[in-house]
Amino acid sequence: MLKVGIVGASGYTGTELIRILVRYPKVEIKLVTANQLSGQEASSVYPSLKGFFDGKYETYDPDRVKEECDVVFLGLPHQESMAVVKELAPAGIKIVDLSADFRFDDRAMYEKTYGVVHLCPELLEDAVYGLPEINREMIKGSKIVANPGCYPTAALLGLYPAASAGLIDGGVVIDAKSGVSGAGRKLTLESHFSTVADGISPYAVSGHRHGPEIKQELTKLAGDVGMVFVPHLVPMNRGILCTMYVKIGRNVNEESIRGLYRDAYSKEHFVQLLESGTYPRTKALQGWNGCHVAVELKDGETLVIMTAIDNLVKGASGQAVQNMNLMCGFPEEKALAGPGLFP
Amino acid sequence: MLKVGIVGASGYTGTELIRILVRYPKVEIKLVTANQLSGQEASSVYPSLKGFFDGKYETYDPDRVKEECDVVFLGLPHQESMAVVKELAPAGIKIVDLSADFRFDDRAMYEKTYGVVHLCPELLEDAVYGLPEINREMIKGSKIVANPGCYPTAALLGLYPAASAGLIDGGVVIDAKSGVSGAGRKLTLESHFSTVADGISPYAVSGHRHGPEIKQELTKLAGDVGMVFVPHLVPMNRGILCTMYVKIGRNVNEESIRGLYRDAYSKEHFVQLLESGTYPRTKALQGWNGCHVAVELKDGETLVIMTAIDNLVKGASGQAVQNMNLMCGFPEEKALAGPGLFP
Amino acid sequence: MLKVGIVGASGYTGTELIRILVRYPKVEIKLVTANQLSGQEASSVYPSLKGFFDGKYETYDPDRVKEECDVVFLGLPHQESMAVVKELAPAGIKIVDLSADFRFDDRAMYEKTYGVVHLCPELLEDAVYGLPEINREMIKGSKIVANPGCYPTAALLGLYPAASAGLIDGGVVIDAKSGVSGAGRKLTLESHFSTVADGISPYAVSGHRHGPEIKQELTKLAGDVGMVFVPHLVPMNRGILCTMYVKIGRNVNEESIRGLYRDAYSKEHFVQLLESGTYPRTKALQGWNGCHVAVELKDGETLVIMTAIDNLVKGASGQAVQNMNLMCGFPEEKALAGPGLFP
Amino acid sequence: MLKVGIVGASGYTGTELIRILVRYPKVEIKLVTANQLSGQEASSVYPSLKGFFDGKYETYDPDRVKEECDVVFLGLPHQESMAVVKELAPAGIKIVDLSADFRFDDRAMYEKTYGVVHLCPELLEDAVYGLPEINREMIKGSKIVANPGCYPTAALLGLYPAASAGLIDGGVVIDAKSGVSGAGRKLTLESHFSTVADGISPYAVSGHRHGPEIKQELTKLAGDVGMVFVPHLVPMNRGILCTMYVKIGRNVNEESIRGLYRDAYSKEHFVQLLESGTYPRTKALQGWNGCHVAVELKDGETLVIMTAIDNLVKGASGQAVQNMNLMCGFPEEKALAGPGLFP
Repeated sequence: MLKVGIVGASGYTGTELIRILVRYPKVEIKLVTANQLSGQEASSVYPSLKGFFDGKYETYDPDRVKEECDVVFLGLPHQESMAVVKELAPAGIKIVDLSADFRFDDRAMYEKTYGVVHLCPELLEDAVYGLPEINREMIKGSKIVANPGCYPTAALLGLYPAASAGLIDGGVVIDAKSGVSGAGRKLTLESHFSTVADGISPYAVSGHRHGPEIKQELTKLAGDVGMVFVPHLVPMNRGILCTMYVKIGRNVNEESIRGLYRDAYSKEHFVQLLESGTYPRTKALQGWNGCHVAVELKDGETLVIMTAIDNLVKGASGQAVQNMNLMCGFPEEKALAGPGLFP
Repeated sequence: MLKVGIVGASGYTGTELIRILVRYPKVEIKLVTANQLSGQEASSVYPSLKGFFDGKYETYDPDRVKEECDVVFLGLPHQESMAVVKELAPAGIKIVDLSADFRFDDRAMYEKTYGVVHLCPELLEDAVYGLPEINREMIKGSKIVANPGCYPTAALLGLYPAASAGLIDGGVVIDAKSGVSGAGRKLTLESHFSTVADGISPYAVSGHRHGPEIKQELTKLAGDVGMVFVPHLVPMNRGILCTMYVKIGRNVNEESIRGLYRDAYSKEHFVQLLESGTYPRTKALQGWNGCHVAVELKDGETLVIMTAIDNLVKGASGQAVQNMNLMCGFPEEKALAGPGLFP
Repeated sequence: MLKVGIVGASGYTGTELIRILVRYPKVEIKLVTANQLSGQEASSVYPSLKGFFDGKYETYDPDRVKEECDVVFLGLPHQESMAVVKELAPAGIKIVDLSADFRFDDRAMYEKTYGVVHLCPELLEDAVYGLPEINREMIKGSKIVANPGCYPTAALLGLYPAASAGLIDGGVVIDAKSGVSGAGRKLTLESHFSTVADGISPYAVSGHRHGPEIKQELTKLAGDVGMVFVPHLVPMNRGILCTMYVKIGRNVNEESIRGLYRDAYSKEHFVQLLESGTYPRTKALQGWNGCHVAVELKDGETLVIMTAIDNLVKGASGQAVQNMNLMCGFPEEKALAGPGLFP
Repeated sequence: MLKVGIVGASGYTGTELIRILVRYPKVEIKLVTANQLSGQEASSVYPSLKGFFDGKYETYDPDRVKEECDVVFLGLPHQESMAVVKELAPAGIKIVDLSADFRFDDRAMYEKTYGVVHLCPELLEDAVYGLPEINREMIKGSKIVANPGCYPTAALLGLYPAASAGLIDGGVVIDAKSGVSGAGRKLTLESHFSTVADGISPYAVSGHRHGPEIKQELTKLAGDVGMVFVPHLVPMNRGILCTMYVKIGRNVNEESIRGLYRDAYSKEHFVQLLESGTYPRTKALQGWNGCHVAVELKDGETLVIMTAIDNLVKGASGQAVQNMNLMCGFPEEKALAGPGLFP
């Protein structure tokens, strides 16, 4: 029985972790922490857990975590997360950090993007960027996995095969659309129902924190190429759709591009290449850890790559469990099976 | 390995059956029929099934069903369903019929409500009304289960304890609110996005077919009491909320009423009584076979009973699998575990 | 040219007042106050106003209001509102107060319901409850109009003809459904997109502040009758739908009841009685100051009354302008014309 | 009094025309046709019109139109529209055609795009492409105005200043997002609530009919430049958002680009340039004939142009009335005033 803890468990990603893990026969959730809700039953805050999880939120206690847990998930805000990692890492516990604190290779880039000082830069090189379809082998051996952001997951899964083949040397436009749960449970005017419902708008056009994260990973695949990233907020609960535009510099046809994607993903459990002429719909992925990918070459020169994921599953907690499975030598898809909810 | 077939599998309830059953280790889906989509892969119509189910819709063939299936689910429109039951019943196959064709004890009431002649009234008394929390024992021994309507499921689970205790002798008002998937995949102006989104309205006030169905079952519990049922269409995908009003005729307090509900449901896997002062939210039940119930006594004389379900799960396909489990002697909650999706 | 001010103008009702009044040729908006946003252009907070209104929010200054305004609308939270009324009333300015502070005849009932002490109970009897279809003549002569709550408006317009005719002596169940803008711009978990979207739930079942307000007015029409009021939150921007259930105590038929409604409303500009067999849809009223009403007698004994309004227009700011028109001797429908937005 | 007719009045654009025109004091709606709903009151089909418009749909009769109307709006499907234009044009009636039948200069391009033979190609050169902000003078003198498509309106208003200045010589990516009313009242699986609500997807990636329309007009402004157009369906009633990406080939900075937009639009009534750092939100434009535009230069080399409109107003019926005003020598903004509805 694997003993896991969730530190920072009262947000949407923490709750999604509980949702996934309670169905995992070999996993026992030993503790869930939420300092501000300490003592409350998780199921009183999230009635969807009623009958499945009777644990109470507790105050984070590093000793207790070290004693009780083999694996710990961190659902904390950035900054808070690295303090916890610094504390727990020496104990050898496996850590899946859902914050951005260990996603950057370069401390300076992290500090610039997030506007804070890194507390344990010495751990950055121990951390692996947890996108299993690209970094599977590294994840298997790691003790600290930086779980990717939701936008980066959707963007990079779409770009990976094309970038690896040198097709995006001319740069890429990433037009991304997200559901509102990506903004979390924090109350802001931007996630207020009356602001969002029945409308759409771009936001953070001049710079979203996931931009540099995508750029870092894309550079590893394709070198230093141009990239424009514009996120939009869509009136839906879950889901990210990325529509990406690449000017193809050389002589390739759609079929050969589809071949690249087939090669990259035909053995992947969680990435499905859609048939020619069909396109991803976020709704087909609700609750599942998958990613739907479509590619289409327009006018023989612009490659349109489209991906969809559930931002709380493949874009966060599902991928975190996928990473845990890899770190622990379990079957990668364990506890992550089951089709999405449609409609 | 239990071999099941789904006849009429291309609607939302058929697809939901597939979603549930592909995660059921002991069940094999032998065939799915959809005469008009025959030859198409189900996952091309419902991309959420991609990677989980590679079956093709086929044309209904009674001989093949008899040969291949131990259990068959019928996701057909009323009228079509009874023709199939008439054909399959003699072969001894276990049948869970999701249509209304076998929900009425009284042929005349059925014919009046649905405006058609019943083709096999002789089978009506073999059929059991498949609400397990009320009729569990009868379901266990039956060969034909009439799976309840979505509104009746939500209403009756709320009324059952009060009705059994004689509390609703003065009649009940059932104000019901449903998500749009309850109207199915058929294209109508009423389920057109532009009609429904961002608004609410009552419909079928003068008579909804689920009214007589609720009345029939309520009469068994409470005798011939007054009942008004008004359904509303809510701009959401899944979910039914019933708010029910009962004028309490005698001296009871809220705590004793809560006691009735606790007695009725404390051992039930799929019905959860909410704490005093908290109310059901359809969203907490998305994708799960559960029902949340709350009761509150207002001004000491009006009992407000509130229930929520996912209309496609507890209100249709999940309950159908629950019934299959009972009919086959399997654990009742098998394949139906897992918390709802929130948000 | 009528000079108006809006004190507390940065919420949804204040903005809706601006939206309506900028199209009113005979009205000049002299000032809009919002202490916390003082100095900001209203159109930078609400881009829908761009090109129509270039005013800036200013800090409330009673002297300036007295000097500049003939009429003032108060879009303040309860409690804050009465302090302003106390200050402005002696100057003889016409006041339309959108808060609850002057809706109650009985100071004690107000204080119990809102949990605060009334600062100027001596003004309560000067204030008129501003539901024009019922209190038109009194409004005409008044200086202080207490603009009704959104739920009370929808409920009372439906109950008025029946109550006046003594039909609801047996009491009434009011099952009310509201869009989220009714909760205002204040950030709460209950109006967070991820809580509300794609689901429905009852709230404040044990007591909503609009309950006693409805009760007070209903008692004037029908005497002390039983009343149960349960509000629900619906995933839509605007709109209230009330479905009301009345057990008819005597021998009346639907047609005679329709006659009562026809008599009451045939000359009303803003209330439309729907044809038999059709029901109100909130969506048909978006942006308009109207109310759609339908009545239906079920089983000869339960009268179902259904009403729909736009909560921000007839339920708040539109009605406030209607009241202003009456107080100033202008045509009642001035600036309030124009069909609702559909879809 | 200007006498107008609406031929093909029962769709969303026809209804929106009625909504706008009933508030137009100098306009009288003489007739509305809808062959399949002939004899029905428009307000029984669209209850939002109740109390504002008591006309009945009638069967189209060219003689009656010629006799009664000064101006006629055509809300017909393409193909049907040109037959009517052919019939009415000789009579000298002013025609605003909301279909695509007269939007193309080149008959062959029209026939290829819409797959039908043009019935009156000789009239194509009499028709003016009715985007007033670009073609105002031509519209003033014309008898046949081809009202632009919704996507082309949103895209071209954003591209116009940049294209005129030669900034988009390197081509443009148009990522467009539309509400569902753009698909009209026709029942399709794609506009079924359960398909669309709470999700997003691209569609018609390989070729949407508005692509060639945008291309034609863009070519007039910028010459033959590359253009990729990908539309998406968003779960909202009204609104189009275009996010457009242009690789800037030469040395310009954001401020000079903003200058181009200011020059182009500062005198326009219906186009508002947003402040730097703010972005359009479809919701701010509900019901208004305006367009919000934002521009931002990313990394000094990619110009991001964002526009939002209400697809049924500026994208259809509002623009049609704007065109009528120009054709008739009326003030352009007549009957089109009034801020959008927010929230």
